[in-house]
Amino acid sequence: MAKIPDATITRIVHYLRALERMEKSGQTRTSSEELARETGVTAFQVRKDLAYFGSYGTRGVGYTVPVLRRELSQILGLGRRWRLAIVGMGRLGQALADFYAWQDGYELVGGFDIDSELIGKKVGPLVIEPVENLPRSVKEKQIDIGILTVPETAAQQTAEMLAEAGVRGILNFAPAVLKLPESVAVENADFMAGLSRLSFFMLNPSWREEMMG
Amino acid sequence: MAKIPDATITRIVHYLRALERMEKSGQTRTSSEELARETGVTAFQVRKDLAYFGSYGTRGVGYTVPVLRRELSQILGLGRRWRLAIVGMGRLGQALADFYAWQDGYELVGGFDIDSELIGKKVGPLVIEPVENLPRSVKEKQIDIGILTVPETAAQQTAEMLAEAGVRGILNFAPAVLKLPESVAVENADFMAGLSRLSFFMLNPSWREEMMG
Repeated sequence: MAKIPDATITRIVHYLRALERMEKSGQTRTSSEELARETGVTAFQVRKDLAYFGSYGTRGVGYTVPVLRRELSQILGLGRRWRLAIVGMGRLGQALADFYAWQDGYELVGGFDIDSELIGKKVGPLVIEPVENLPRSVKEKQIDIGILTVPETAAQQTAEMLAEAGVRGILNFAPAVLKLPESVAVENADFMAGLSRLSFFMLNPSWREEMMG
Repeated sequence: MAKIPDATITRIVHYLRALERMEKSGQTRTSSEELARETGVTAFQVRKDLAYFGSYGTRGVGYTVPVLRRELSQILGLGRRWRLAIVGMGRLGQALADFYAWQDGYELVGGFDIDSELIGKKVGPLVIEPVENLPRSVKEKQIDIGILTVPETAAQQTAEMLAEAGVRGILNFAPAVLKLPESVAVENADFMAGLSRLSFFMLNPSWREEMMG
């Protein structure tokens, strides 16, 4: 089966957002050129990315906005309702609990910590539970995705606990490279690494490679 | 000049963290094999990544932990003290203000918003200022990096304001693709896109490509 670069999926997210803006403003047709302009890539790149999933455009006619929007949304699995839990309810975890409680398509159903002073605290839609409850909660509440916001030293162990409990995806905010079975998808959302990359490219602007498909 | 893949810089951040852990525990020597194990890549990849910056290892002997740690830290520009401002002091901005106030190597010197109810509010080390102050503040406080946490609709315009004021790097949490002059480095820290990628790879695990150098 074809392998798809991470960068393609990131761009699919960007195309989808551009299509959502177009649909909201009543626009019904678009082109690879317009999608390219809106997302800062080339029209060739747009066509190449969409070709991974079958061709949706007609030469000289382009794309129907709501059709392509629906297709990309389905490809990304955004049609379903994912159930999330946050592990690590410190400052960042609490901020994210508040944030995710308001996002469409995601249902925040659990928040866990080891700090006894946090247990029982209400944050947004959650009451913080002890991390010992995690294995049972993942099963009972059918939690699909774990948001990992524990310190670096606890990251690997906590990720393994989530994987063993049956979570299939982890959004990892901890500054740690997780080693998990391939059956668990991991996305790094570690923005301190982003800040380090930023400082590198600020000091060495000419070293930057264009994002390739 | 050689172009360096983003993925290499991300791995340099991971190598650096592994080296910091080793140094803290008193370990003085390491190898590409050990760095590979610690960061989930191959030893070949480690050597290839480090080769971009000149060779630091000795065949059969490996690397001196504190030397390589210092070199990588310098490469990433982490030796200097960057001055940060957050634009968009809503929930996420306030959480990040609290977070960045405690990070080594970064000095949080400004927080801006358009909401008059937020102006003057104290958050961590900051007093929130009106966004009109931004151009003057960037110059007076010599702000290097802007953390962008405004809504999607305000992202492009606010990023341009930061660029015009003289900011050289933007860590972009807004769900928008910024179009800026090449002289401004941008890193996306948009974790909702990460969640979309996660849901794609949870539904299509066999489509995932290995991260390539």
